[in-house]
Amino acid sequence: MTEMNSDKNIAIDFRELVSPFNAKMKAVNELIRERMASRHAPRIPEVTAHLVESGGKRLRPILTLAAAGLYDYEGDYDVYLAATVEFLHTATLLHDDVVDESEMRRGRATANLLWDNKSSVLVGDYLFSRSFKLMVETGSLRVLDILADASGTIAEGEVLQLTSARDLSTGEEHYLQIVRGKTATLFSAAAEVGGVVAEASEDDIAALREYGDALGIAFQIADDLLDYKGDIGDTGKKVGNDFRERKLTLPLIKSIAASNRTEHSFWQRCICKGEQREGDLEHALAILEKRNALVETRDDALRWAERAKDSLRGLPKHRIRDVLGGLADFAVMRVS
Amino acid sequence: MTEMNSDKNIAIDFRELVSPFNAKMKAVNELIRERMASRHAPRIPEVTAHLVESGGKRLRPILTLAAAGLYDYEGDYDVYLAATVEFLHTATLLHDDVVDESEMRRGRATANLLWDNKSSVLVGDYLFSRSFKLMVETGSLRVLDILADASGTIAEGEVLQLTSARDLSTGEEHYLQIVRGKTATLFSAAAEVGGVVAEASEDDIAALREYGDALGIAFQIADDLLDYKGDIGDTGKKVGNDFRERKLTLPLIKSIAASNRTEHSFWQRCICKGEQREGDLEHALAILEKRNALVETRDDALRWAERAKDSLRGLPKHRIRDVLGGLADFAVMRVS
Repeated sequence: MTEMNSDKNIAIDFRELVSPFNAKMKAVNELIRERMASRHAPRIPEVTAHLVESGGKRLRPILTLAAAGLYDYEGDYDVYLAATVEFLHTATLLHDDVVDESEMRRGRATANLLWDNKSSVLVGDYLFSRSFKLMVETGSLRVLDILADASGTIAEGEVLQLTSARDLSTGEEHYLQIVRGKTATLFSAAAEVGGVVAEASEDDIAALREYGDALGIAFQIADDLLDYKGDIGDTGKKVGNDFRERKLTLPLIKSIAASNRTEHSFWQRCICKGEQREGDLEHALAILEKRNALVETRDDALRWAERAKDSLRGLPKHRIRDVLGGLADFAVMRVS
Repeated sequence: MTEMNSDKNIAIDFRELVSPFNAKMKAVNELIRERMASRHAPRIPEVTAHLVESGGKRLRPILTLAAAGLYDYEGDYDVYLAATVEFLHTATLLHDDVVDESEMRRGRATANLLWDNKSSVLVGDYLFSRSFKLMVETGSLRVLDILADASGTIAEGEVLQLTSARDLSTGEEHYLQIVRGKTATLFSAAAEVGGVVAEASEDDIAALREYGDALGIAFQIADDLLDYKGDIGDTGKKVGNDFRERKLTLPLIKSIAASNRTEHSFWQRCICKGEQREGDLEHALAILEKRNALVETRDDALRWAERAKDSLRGLPKHRIRDVLGGLADFAVMRVS
């Protein structure tokens, strides 16, 4: 394995990688700005702009544009659907930050901190309805069905995460289910609807769906790993956030499964009881190292990225297929 | 005007009035129970059942069933759409209670108090997605469009209410806009989609939409009036809740518009500054009486109920049309 790449190089790689979609993404951003306006309630665009314009990578809309682009789709609905998935994602973030009581997102203060929880809840609802309106405009019942299912899975995953938090018996399967809810389902739906709108074959649509799923899982595992080894410049979060918030992500789950009695008591105190003291994070990191949990987590992320790339095999030989493969590499570049 | 009717009589009248829909409502309730289940997250049906089975009147689903029934609709989609609007309504209530920090709803502790705000936010999101899935199953893009617009207007109205709270310059027009957002829009959409699914004429669909709008406004004005003169048996809330929460509803808006300097200072202290003392509610009620605000508010409610009935004129002569007229009377019966 090579050393972790510097953040700067990654940023440049990513921008170059997705440059084929620059024109379309401009249209997506315009549509987002147009649709987040509200005649009556100026609070809505205020809150939304804070989040939408905070420099997220726009990965989900890119997946939609890329999937449609694979078939040289020439209509406008890919742009509509790309804006739709970004709205859905933004709505989820707003509600997430309320649920997590977060204070930082993408290196900036969260909306619930700047305004209040109420605004985050209601503006999130407004964005859900706007995304809903946009997808209706595409006139595709199949697209609507995919996104209705996706939004159900997302909400279910969030509730699951909430009710199973701080439970040391959380296994890898359970973790995967939560990750699908919080990340992979929308990645998967974003890619799938791009294929649907471009009238790809059923086999190709299934492949796009699987690609999105594996890519989303790779991303989320990498994110959860970075929480233990990343730096603030990269993720906008401090190292050890998940530990402090007592979240059972993959590195912890692997360590706990392999723990001896002393370690188990340590996890019980820090995660279940939430009694954390000076030096606990350092001790946790030492256990993760000893149990090889960070290496194994990285290997899992890499395996999911490979799986994403494997899903692309049957798709049309097109320069965009290479971009999709590149995105899978990008997902794990920060940890490989 | 007659004396206010006793709650018991009203309950009996209502049940009798809507008895033609008993069989269909049973199917709606079954569908709701079926669809609120979640394989993975048992918290979801727990929270939902608390609200769905707390004995609300199910007015919105009845409107959908009634509108479709006017045309002797024989399919099942009226049941789907009735469940859809009830899910939308329930989702809104869950989020509302978080935003309002309510502790009582329909005479019971609210979900945010029994579980937590997080569960209310996420289970609300889940119900949105379930309602969305149900409407997609009807296969009607027109229905989807109506409900997408409605859910946007609802969220917008809530944000508007949030950002204009405690502002003494709130006028009647502004109030009406908030009422449309929080109540009338869903009433209107519920009636409209019933007509659409039963393939009513465009004129009839427009009439159903107007009927629902006027009915919803009549209901909300009556509700806001009851907050100053109702009793706990009827609304499940204490008198003066809106005053204590410093909400500018129609009785206050009318009083403030007619206030002299002393009264204006009183409103400023109680509503803007929120400095409320023992005896303030009684004083507020005395001003409302003096300024004739309760009588005028009641007259407005009655006028909207008449308007609802007027909208029914061009609709088919059918026993269900009489039920719809009866619902308009029922809306204001509690205050007339």
